[in-house]
Parts: sequence; structure tokens; C-alpha cells
Amino acid sequence: MILADLLITGVAEAATLAHGPVPRIGIAAGELSRIPDAAVAVEGGRFVYVGPERGVSRKVRLRPGGRRFDAAGGTIVPGFVDAHTHVLFAGDRAFELPWKAQGMDYSEIARRGGGILSTVRATRRATREQLLRETGQRLAAMARAGTTAAEVKTGYSLTPGGEVELLRLVPVLAQRTGLRLVPTFLGAHAVPPEYRGRPDAYVDRLIRKSLPIIAQERLAKFVDVFCEPGFFSVRTSERLLRAAHSVGLGTKVHADEFVRSGGARLAARRGARSADHLLAANVDDVRALAHAGVTAVVLPATAFGSTSARRSPARELLDAGVAVALGTDCSPNSWVESMPLAVSLAVHGGRLSPAEALTAATVNAAHAISLEEAGTVEVGRPADFSVFPVPTADHVGYRYDVRPSVVFRQGNAISSRTLRQ
Amino acid sequence: MILADLLITGVAEAATLAHGPVPRIGIAAGELSRIPDAAVAVEGGRFVYVGPERGVSRKVRLRPGGRRFDAAGGTIVPGFVDAHTHVLFAGDRAFELPWKAQGMDYSEIARRGGGILSTVRATRRATREQLLRETGQRLAAMARAGTTAAEVKTGYSLTPGGEVELLRLVPVLAQRTGLRLVPTFLGAHAVPPEYRGRPDAYVDRLIRKSLPIIAQERLAKFVDVFCEPGFFSVRTSERLLRAAHSVGLGTKVHADEFVRSGGARLAARRGARSADHLLAANVDDVRALAHAGVTAVVLPATAFGSTSARRSPARELLDAGVAVALGTDCSPNSWVESMPLAVSLAVHGGRLSPAEALTAATVNAAHAISLEEAGTVEVGRPADFSVFPVPTADHVGYRYDVRPSVVFRQGNAISSRTLRQ
Repeated sequence: MILADLLITGVAEAATLAHGPVPRIGIAAGELSRIPDAAVAVEGGRFVYVGPERGVSRKVRLRPGGRRFDAAGGTIVPGFVDAHTHVLFAGDRAFELPWKAQGMDYSEIARRGGGILSTVRATRRATREQLLRETGQRLAAMARAGTTAAEVKTGYSLTPGGEVELLRLVPVLAQRTGLRLVPTFLGAHAVPPEYRGRPDAYVDRLIRKSLPIIAQERLAKFVDVFCEPGFFSVRTSERLLRAAHSVGLGTKVHADEFVRSGGARLAARRGARSADHLLAANVDDVRALAHAGVTAVVLPATAFGSTSARRSPARELLDAGVAVALGTDCSPNSWVESMPLAVSLAVHGGRLSPAEALTAATVNAAHAISLEEAGTVEVGRPADFSVFPVPTADHVGYRYDVRPSVVFRQGNAISSRTLRQ
Repeated sequence: MILADLLITGVAEAATLAHGPVPRIGIAAGELSRIPDAAVAVEGGRFVYVGPERGVSRKVRLRPGGRRFDAAGGTIVPGFVDAHTHVLFAGDRAFELPWKAQGMDYSEIARRGGGILSTVRATRRATREQLLRETGQRLAAMARAGTTAAEVKTGYSLTPGGEVELLRLVPVLAQRTGLRLVPTFLGAHAVPPEYRGRPDAYVDRLIRKSLPIIAQERLAKFVDVFCEPGFFSVRTSERLLRAAHSVGLGTKVHADEFVRSGGARLAARRGARSADHLLAANVDDVRALAHAGVTAVVLPATAFGSTSARRSPARELLDAGVAVALGTDCSPNSWVESMPLAVSLAVHGGRLSPAEALTAATVNAAHAISLEEAGTVEVGRPADFSVFPVPTADHVGYRYDVRPSVVFRQGNAISSRTLRQ
């Protein structure tokens, strides 16, 4: 008899995403691991039973004081893993909307005082407590939408010391919100005003001042770089990534978002954990990623927010044999906290099947941020999952931005909706 | 002293949308009626105080047993009015997604057994209770996202009697969900299989069999028609609209969605309450709508769900002097329940300001479905409103699909999120 402190019954379908290779490439609808009429049991924060509801009472015994939860015909999916966020910032950029409505692009908005450097000013001015409070509210909204783990990039301080201080906030945020957070050092998010025209001098400082502390104190899992004209060249980016590898840090690349600038090739050449965005990548770039085994992180909500008609190349990447992961890219430029929105955009605009999109938002996203334990509903794994009020997991991508009834992190409900009078 | 049974304080901003003409055209960000640091009081389901929090204790007295609610620095906006929904149906069309992923269009999907007629089969087969339950779940999800009033179209029975029976379900749904629902007769949603190739014969039947009952029993406020090649011609549509007017019913037109077929001109000529979709309307059509005072209902989530790159012409309509309203267009083809998603799509893709989009989603939408009391936060009006966890109303459009902390309908909380263990 299995002892449990939480038992969930009344589950129309459990999408377990179990028993497959990680990362997964090109999972079709029929291949998604599913259990119809399921039950799930949790003990000490981990799954101890994932299987049919029929006969569960003979296999699982709820401890005295244990909780029983009726999913009321809903569907269980693994907690979402948001593989790419810029969620750690202060202030907002609602003031840019009239400019965007006029069709101004990223660089024109930057010239008028908007863009990344505007948020850098707000973040440098903010107190530690303000940063924690504002970022914590965003992370809580992510959790309500079904996210249980997320990557958190720095990048809005843009001084070698300030960027390290941002990294130190990530464990505090994890503790306050109950989310698993993976810190990424994105000191090379933009060239700070103090180094205008001298990106190499700035990257030198990051390599000499920031990386040793990060490596020594294990403050980040990854080093990322914004490899794009006007930001950091391929050559400069490569220098930073080499330095990161040499001190034992993983790497990521903001690659080929605006123009085809060589970021995907760089990620493939350096064996980065992921290449992210890829809107302008061509078929050769995609082949290089597939050959190098680099995971592609696609961010369909970012294209939704831009005035361009470009769509995330999720389908093309999958068809070429690249493992695809999803993220929100939450930032002051595209303030999206909902992974279900990213999933439905990947389906409706990115032409993934609901099963492929769900895989990208869970197991593959976990792989993209080296969180191999997360992203599946399997015995022995952490009990991070959501109950969605839909009859099958396909409906999470079919419907637009459906939200969960309840989200569990290590077996504890971190969000739900109930009537309040 | 004003007596109240509900008092809300701690409101960073109340977007009242009060004291203006209805419908509203081209409201810019600065013109939105806003009260910073506000309080709101309700008595008997209607607002009795809407003003600054400062001094409210000298003006408003909470009754014994009355409820006090702290908005915690959130923003009050009027309950959303969803001006266009096909929410009354059975089943789903998730099976079409692989076809959509291959780029098939609406008519090709219909030829393969998908499309409207697939949902017609499911709806004809469904029991009354199944229809009420499935539709009620969608309406409940809409309410959780901040909608307090919605239009509900028929159109998935496609027999003169069945369409009337669908109308009879709308008051039952209103009673079960607590939403204000406005029924629209869309018997002319598609040509039913029994009348293939004979749209005029079908419309004759609707005019002779359905309209008299609808008019006599006041079952619908509007008659709508799908005026598009392959559905109903301008001439046939016009015959139906004339008949509707002659029995005292209002009219709406599904106009110029796929091709420029003359629907907007028809709406202008017949003085319809609204012309809806308008993706293919040209500048002359838009001028005709402006001249005739027809409200345009734009549905940006529908374009999001299609594989085409077409955007809702919200900006062009507003600039031409047309009052713009918003809806979700929730249907089995684009299953979207969230008005905040429609608002953020109107801002980011449709190039409206957040204030314009909010106006379109509230007062203008109320006008589009003749619900003139709804859509504002004003003393004497029904207390239908939401508290969003954002510092200003602009953030509802700036952020992507932000959801309310709590939604009130006639002063009663119909949804909230609270922690549940």
C-alpha cells in the first residue's frame, strides 16, 4: 500500500509526458503520454502514484489529515517551465505604446528614450525591496497561470557589480514565491551608456569583474548574450561565451531575432544550451542547431506584441529535428506572464500540435534551463502540476490562454480560484 | 450620509468611463475618465459613491453586516461587455488543428467535415442540459476574466425551430451564470445541409417561421446574418434584415470578414446596430459606416487564431470616426473567453491606445448590443466592475491578457482567486 498526503481523483486526463527521451523532438498528438480517468497521489512533495483512478483505493492510502482533491473532470498537466524571462526589472514602459501604435521599431523607440536603457534607469534607481516586490508580483501572476519553474535573466543594471547584485535577488524571489528559479547572467543585454560605442571594453569588464564572482559563488547557471547588430557582435559574444565556459558556466544566445546576424551559428559552434528567438534564422542555421543538439527556445508572445507579422519558426525548427522549448520572454517590452498564452500562440500561429506545444512548455523547457527533474508527472518526480478545467490536454493549446483551476508546487496548492463573497 | 452595503478602498485608479457621449469615438489616453486613489460604494447592486478615497468616511457609511474590500493598490474598470460571441454550442473542434497547421483555409476545412456544420451536428445531437452545461462553463470562464455582460448568438442548429429553441436557453444561462446576456438570432449563420444551394428558400423559412415567434415572445434583441460568398449574398441578407426591422428587431451584420462582399455597405444602408469583423472592408466602406452611425465590432482574437496575417482594422475605423466596440468572437473555431486578451490584441496588433481599447470593451460594446446602462462606473449605474492587480487602467492593455483579482456583478463577487490549501 502506498501512503500519500495528497490524493487527486476525478481527473479526465493526465498528460504525464513520461517515459520518453529528453529533449523531445517532434512529438505528435497521438504520442503524448496520457492517462484517461486518472488519479495522482503525492507524498512529501513528490509523486507516489500516477495511474488509472480505477482501483486506486486498493493501491493508495491517504494518511490521516491528508488532503483529497476532486479535479471535477479537469486535466492534469505538468507545471509549466518558462524557459526565457526578463522578469527582473523595475517600472514599466506603457509610455511606449503610442510610439508602437505609430509603427516605430525597437531602435527608433530606443532613440526616443524608451527601450532597454529606460528600464535600466528605473532598475538602477529602484531599491532592493521595490525590485523584489515588483518582480515577485509578476512571478505570482506566472504561478497563477500554471508556471512552477522559470528562468530569470539579469540585464537591467548593466554594470559588472549591479548585474551580480541582481543575481543575488533570484534565490530570495524563489523563496518568496515558491517557484523554482534558474538564474541567467545577461550582463551583455545591451551596451550601457557608460560604454557607448565600446562594447568590447564592457564585455572585458564583465569577464574580469563579474564572471569570477558568479562562478565562485554559483550565482548563475548560464551566461547569455544579446548577439544582434547595435548590441554585441558575433566576435564579442563568442569571447564572452568562451570565458563563461572556461569558468564552468552554461551558455545561451539571443540569436537572430531582428536580423540574421549569426547568433544561431554561434550557439551551435559553442555548444550553447539554447539559442533563443531565431525569427530571422534560415534553414542552414536551423540545420546547424539540429546537428549541434542545441535546444531552440521560441517566444511566440514577443512576435504577438510587435507590429511585425513575423511568426515564431517553431514548426520549421521541429521539422528540421531541433528540440523546441517555449518561454514567455516576459519583459517591460512584452509584459506576458502566461505560459498558456505562449502555448496557444505556438499552436495557432506557430503551427505546433497541442501535444508538441505542451512538450515544449514542460520537459523541453526544463531541459533548456538544465532543470532535468521538472516538467513531467511521474512517480519520483517533484509534484509540480496544474489542473486545467478542460477535458483533454489538447484543449490547453486549442483554446486561447485557458487558465488552471489550481496549481500545485511540491504538492502544495499555490493558486486557485474559489468564490469569495 | 450615503448608506452602502459594499465599500471598496485602496484603489490606485478607477477608470469610470463616465460623463461622455455614447458611443465614443477616438478616446485618447489622456481623455479616459480616471480617479486616482479612489473609493467606490455600492448599495442594492448599484453604485452610490464613485470618488476619491480621501474623505470617503465622512460621506459613506457602511451598513451593519456590509462588506469592506481592500483593492490593495489595484485598478477598478467597468465590467467588460463582450459584444460578439458564438458561445452557445456543443462539442469542440480541436480535431481541426492539424489541418490548420497545414495552412488549410476555412472553406477547405469545411469540405473535410470541419467548420460550422460540424458544430451544427454536435449541437443538434446535444441534450438541452449538455448545451446549458458546456455553454455555462464558457460563460463562467468569461466572468472570471472580467466579463459581466455578453451577446450570445444562435447559429449552430440551423433549423427555423431549433434556432428559436437555442434563443430560449439564453435567459436560463443568464440566470445560472449571473451575467447579463443579450440574445441575437443568427439563424442565417450558414446554409444548412437540408437547403444546400438554396439559401433563399432557407431565409424564407426563417422569415416566415422564426421571426414571428421571436418578435412576439421577445426572444432576441437582434437578427444577425453571415453575409459572405458561400453563405448569404447581400441581396438575401438584406431581405432578412428588412423582415427583422419590420417586426421591430434590431440588426447586425457579419460583414467583409473574408472578402469585401458588401456587408459593411449593407449595414450602413439598413442602419444596423453594428457591422462586425470588417477585415476586408476598404476606406469607402469605413466612411459609409461612419456616415450611418453604425458601430464597428472588431474581433482581434479571431485573426490571432487564423493563419493569415490580417489584423483588425481598429485604428483605421477609429481614425475615420467610427465608434469601435470589441468582442471575443468566442466559437469552436477560436475558443477565446478572455476580454482582456481581446483588449491587449486591440492595443498591440490593432494599434489602439489602452484607453481606446478599454472604451471599446465597455461603453462602446454596451452600445453595440443596446445595453446602455452597462459599461461605466457611475453613481446610479449597476455595480458591474472588476479589480485588476495593476497600477493604472492602461496596464490592462499594455500587459498581455492580465486577469482580474475579483469581479463584481451588481455588487456581488462572482470570481476571485484566493489561496486554497
